[in-house]
Amino acid sequence: MQHFFGRHSLPDIRVGVVGASGYSGLELLKVLLYHPRVRITKLFGNASNGRRIDEVHPSLHNVLGLKIEELEPSKLAGLDVLFVALPSGQSMHVVPQALTEGCRVIDLGGDFRLADASLYRKYYGHQHAAEHLLALAVYGLTEWNCKAIRSAQLVANPGCYPTGIHLALLPLLKVSLLDDSPIFISSYSGTSGAGRTVSDAMMFSEVNESVRAYKVGNHQHIPELQQYLKQFSGKDLTFSFVPHLLPVTRGIYTTIGCRLKSGSGAPDVARAYEASYASSPFVRIVVPAIPDMKNVQHTNFCDIGFVTDSDRLVVFSAIDNLGKGAAGQAVQNMNIMFDLPQTEGLLPCAKLK
Amino acid sequence: MQHFFGRHSLPDIRVGVVGASGYSGLELLKVLLYHPRVRITKLFGNASNGRRIDEVHPSLHNVLGLKIEELEPSKLAGLDVLFVALPSGQSMHVVPQALTEGCRVIDLGGDFRLADASLYRKYYGHQHAAEHLLALAVYGLTEWNCKAIRSAQLVANPGCYPTGIHLALLPLLKVSLLDDSPIFISSYSGTSGAGRTVSDAMMFSEVNESVRAYKVGNHQHIPELQQYLKQFSGKDLTFSFVPHLLPVTRGIYTTIGCRLKSGSGAPDVARAYEASYASSPFVRIVVPAIPDMKNVQHTNFCDIGFVTDSDRLVVFSAIDNLGKGAAGQAVQNMNIMFDLPQTEGLLPCAKLK
Amino acid sequence: MQHFFGRHSLPDIRVGVVGASGYSGLELLKVLLYHPRVRITKLFGNASNGRRIDEVHPSLHNVLGLKIEELEPSKLAGLDVLFVALPSGQSMHVVPQALTEGCRVIDLGGDFRLADASLYRKYYGHQHAAEHLLALAVYGLTEWNCKAIRSAQLVANPGCYPTGIHLALLPLLKVSLLDDSPIFISSYSGTSGAGRTVSDAMMFSEVNESVRAYKVGNHQHIPELQQYLKQFSGKDLTFSFVPHLLPVTRGIYTTIGCRLKSGSGAPDVARAYEASYASSPFVRIVVPAIPDMKNVQHTNFCDIGFVTDSDRLVVFSAIDNLGKGAAGQAVQNMNIMFDLPQTEGLLPCAKLK
Amino acid sequence: MQHFFGRHSLPDIRVGVVGASGYSGLELLKVLLYHPRVRITKLFGNASNGRRIDEVHPSLHNVLGLKIEELEPSKLAGLDVLFVALPSGQSMHVVPQALTEGCRVIDLGGDFRLADASLYRKYYGHQHAAEHLLALAVYGLTEWNCKAIRSAQLVANPGCYPTGIHLALLPLLKVSLLDDSPIFISSYSGTSGAGRTVSDAMMFSEVNESVRAYKVGNHQHIPELQQYLKQFSGKDLTFSFVPHLLPVTRGIYTTIGCRLKSGSGAPDVARAYEASYASSPFVRIVVPAIPDMKNVQHTNFCDIGFVTDSDRLVVFSAIDNLGKGAAGQAVQNMNIMFDLPQTEGLLPCAKLK
Repeated sequence: MQHFFGRHSLPDIRVGVVGASGYSGLELLKVLLYHPRVRITKLFGNASNGRRIDEVHPSLHNVLGLKIEELEPSKLAGLDVLFVALPSGQSMHVVPQALTEGCRVIDLGGDFRLADASLYRKYYGHQHAAEHLLALAVYGLTEWNCKAIRSAQLVANPGCYPTGIHLALLPLLKVSLLDDSPIFISSYSGTSGAGRTVSDAMMFSEVNESVRAYKVGNHQHIPELQQYLKQFSGKDLTFSFVPHLLPVTRGIYTTIGCRLKSGSGAPDVARAYEASYASSPFVRIVVPAIPDMKNVQHTNFCDIGFVTDSDRLVVFSAIDNLGKGAAGQAVQNMNIMFDLPQTEGLLPCAKLK
Repeated sequence: MQHFFGRHSLPDIRVGVVGASGYSGLELLKVLLYHPRVRITKLFGNASNGRRIDEVHPSLHNVLGLKIEELEPSKLAGLDVLFVALPSGQSMHVVPQALTEGCRVIDLGGDFRLADASLYRKYYGHQHAAEHLLALAVYGLTEWNCKAIRSAQLVANPGCYPTGIHLALLPLLKVSLLDDSPIFISSYSGTSGAGRTVSDAMMFSEVNESVRAYKVGNHQHIPELQQYLKQFSGKDLTFSFVPHLLPVTRGIYTTIGCRLKSGSGAPDVARAYEASYASSPFVRIVVPAIPDMKNVQHTNFCDIGFVTDSDRLVVFSAIDNLGKGAAGQAVQNMNIMFDLPQTEGLLPCAKLK
Repeated sequence: MQHFFGRHSLPDIRVGVVGASGYSGLELLKVLLYHPRVRITKLFGNASNGRRIDEVHPSLHNVLGLKIEELEPSKLAGLDVLFVALPSGQSMHVVPQALTEGCRVIDLGGDFRLADASLYRKYYGHQHAAEHLLALAVYGLTEWNCKAIRSAQLVANPGCYPTGIHLALLPLLKVSLLDDSPIFISSYSGTSGAGRTVSDAMMFSEVNESVRAYKVGNHQHIPELQQYLKQFSGKDLTFSFVPHLLPVTRGIYTTIGCRLKSGSGAPDVARAYEASYASSPFVRIVVPAIPDMKNVQHTNFCDIGFVTDSDRLVVFSAIDNLGKGAAGQAVQNMNIMFDLPQTEGLLPCAKLK
Repeated sequence: MQHFFGRHSLPDIRVGVVGASGYSGLELLKVLLYHPRVRITKLFGNASNGRRIDEVHPSLHNVLGLKIEELEPSKLAGLDVLFVALPSGQSMHVVPQALTEGCRVIDLGGDFRLADASLYRKYYGHQHAAEHLLALAVYGLTEWNCKAIRSAQLVANPGCYPTGIHLALLPLLKVSLLDDSPIFISSYSGTSGAGRTVSDAMMFSEVNESVRAYKVGNHQHIPELQQYLKQFSGKDLTFSFVPHLLPVTRGIYTTIGCRLKSGSGAPDVARAYEASYASSPFVRIVVPAIPDMKNVQHTNFCDIGFVTDSDRLVVFSAIDNLGKGAAGQAVQNMNIMFDLPQTEGLLPCAKLK
């Protein structure tokens, strides 16, 4: 990678990462390492404090050898941005002090996504410890909230499922293409979405060669979908969200069934996506084809496709849950917060001919 | 297995199998081998004629060594039943002669499922060569068509997707629990459902670690669903069927979204399943749990579960596409045709205490 | 399955299973359920006591609904045989009381395989609690120890790795075909071999799409190999055993590199296998082909193949770690202990023509 | 990625790729796209001529949209380097004209690796069409042939298996640590190593949940190993190479059993690796740990580990067959040929603190 920049005298972005030993944390480091404007300055953890990051993640050996430190407020001074990649319930104890120290924060977890603390308590199972910051948090769905992200102090990076669902549904809702029938959302996720916490249900012998739905009707991403589908489209929706676990490591595939308003058809759907994403480098409309999960793995892309079936519409989206569903979108948001092109470090600008 | 039968002097069922070299054919042999009343008499093939079956399927070495023969009408004499496990379009050339020779036939392919030959031509892509037999064929959805199967000369064994979908939906339709909203059916299949035909799309490197929908709106199981959902429920339905390919070898998982009629709820759904399947040994209602594909692999079970979400209902079913979706149900139908308990050879009757 | 036995008036074998909630326990039940001479009488567990077995293993729903009981000596009365499928270190507390109650015992774990209690302590990490029974235990490698198994009170069922390795090497050693070069044994196991204990290393995201060697030089199966390779061949061997973890659920594939004595060649190897296994229904010599793991899954077979390469010999074996490597061989041993054909319940005796 | 370079006025490297529609071709493009000094100028193919590369590889949509052209000599003018990623037997028809046009060539296939055309004919099954160029070709095992690569007109990029094997064995051979016992090499490869050619053996249903050895004693990488192990170490070796197919998409894991000379031990082995690779950025000695395939996927690393077991030595290496085993090493070689740091475009130079 290239790291000499004659074109500008801008200082690098000084970055800290909390929770670098998890799967999202590792993915974040891999993305940041290829970012030409980033200086990886501090890594913070819990159980892994005092160890080198390449001991925790041997794939980083010869690539990154920083030591993981215990998080203390004084160590945050001088960081431009702190990424927080902690399980839900932990981030809310870290974010306040980071903001106090003047860091901008991008939280990859669920602690600052919901405006309503009582919904947080209901779906995440514990009391919120920093309710006063909920109003400050800006939802980091880049393609739909760019302006607010630019000036945000605290970005709540979207959940992996909601990212693929919002990107597929919002263009249709915005131009009112759907009737009032319930919308059925079936999502299929790879196992890295569950993070690195050990459990019987996530053992190889239990997951391999199988599929199962889980948390139907009570997944913590439901209130997130409800809040932001309404916020960005202005509409109340009736939907069911059914997450499933898939025997793959990375990726989320979503299939959505809905019904078009009378008089609407495939060209309207195509136009709606075109209108929303014509200038979005990371959303690819693959019509007439159907997305394939493998085409987005290890990228920040969201591939969207659709098929009309009489007056029904089936919409598909595919993302990498660790990419656009977590670390990729987080860096895309960082780019916007620091006035960089949103593709910086995320897309090669191929030199051709 | 036990093969001395003091209890009866009934003769064994003399069985022939056409298409034994495919995946359904192999599964059929494995089921038949454990059936105490079956005598495997003839194997027929095409490219594999003249070879021993355990050369074609090394897993059968030391188990079954019959030679695969070229199918000739004279060789069918004396068979009680002929199983046909050929790709669609081939079975219709074999079935007429078998019926002429007096064999009863169970066809695992799609050639005799649709009553309407023009729909066959449209969805299977070629003209039907034995239209006169379509009216004779009996749809082999055991739990819903038992009486007709008992006396059938020709059973059209259901498609793998329709099996899991019919079993999940018909009890609800029969008692009119659903309103007129479109029903969305997402099914996820392992690769053995595509048979043994070689193609780029089914290569390991293409399928592994990925998921994709395919044939949305034009899958050949759509007219089969339309015909039999109506036939068994008496109702016209609006539905979309979205098949997906999954990186597992065996199994189909189906997630169905629909809406309950006003006034109906979870207890009604439970009662509907109870009413339909209380005496069905192979349909298991797993409520309150959600089915897991691995629990039905290598069995003839269909596991069904459901969750209500306000007025929406999400129904799940899981089958083994080679078991209840093909060979298992075929043998279940044979049992019924020959007045045996439907579980014969398919379920152990454990001796306890 | 057939359950009426006109041919004999022999009583059924009354069977108990300890540790039915694990993977080997489940597999054992599935095999026993298809055994025409077995009466499943008692299930014992720990954490799962009081629950029905089909709650613990939903795949058994509608198949077996026995309650899991707390193990107490009085409950063992009347059992003909007790299978113990517990993790190493637990079985040695159960076996003594079972023997006292007059049960014959087949232990699927490692507690009674090693003659030397100090080796047990070294490799299993804890003191042996029933050393006095080590001399009583008979190693259950069916094809090589049949006579001793027949009259055994306590059978120590072989480890999964040693089963495939012994079966591949012993015929060669018995007729002294190998020179003194070190033998290199690389084995690749599916994850069910590690049992159901939850650990970070066995999580789907860690195992999937990867391979790694582990416990090289200190695996607990090394002293087992040393003891029995010597016991059955009369020779001291120099070998290295390298186990690897594979991203599949079931199966062990072993590749062994060794050197032929001068003057020996492929025909001698073939003759050695023929001499050892001509009448063994569960060992299949697949030469000239090479074994494929999928051909033995869900069976009690061990497939063996070999290739000579100048004076080197490469031998392959494949088993299902839960089948021939655990539950299958345990039932094969039970058959021998109770004077049944060794294939009873393990192989279909196809009725042909 | 960053593409403005104040530091130098060096022109970009103008690159052409033949065979861009295969798996190695796609991986090569992905690597080249992130290389700051490369200008992707021409893509050539066969069946895919006239199509855009992102139609052939949808994962490249929005990333690279070049058209694939028919290869004609005139189109090669002006290219600095041509990468050839064609199946063996095709490259030898392309390379001569490229050299004539003045392009330097890096061939990822097997056509120019063997010095002896008769061995080529024996192992690849067809006559060599450009024997006169064999003497010109330089073997592209970067860590061992750097000087010759620097000035090469034609680099024969090593096979995937030999890359991991050479890197593991050569340091030991160079300092004569091994005795004369035969060396046993077991390698396990993901399916992408077989390329994109469709075959029954590579279908998902055949590969999934299984493992099998193949081409034992006659794999085309055997003469390549023989030639270069000798060339770089000066020693004649006795070894057997056993390749296996693994149900993963990417990666090769190799386990080698050999014997140390009397008097040698683990510290000597460690010193040998240190001596050979202390300044090699892409070879990581992971002792005391054991390599894990997943740590090298999507990288150009080769991870090496070892365990001594009395006088035996077991050595492990892991590479990504598409990375260090193909595209990664090809670009590493290009860097050397064009006087760039060998890590350029292959490793992030993290900016820290």
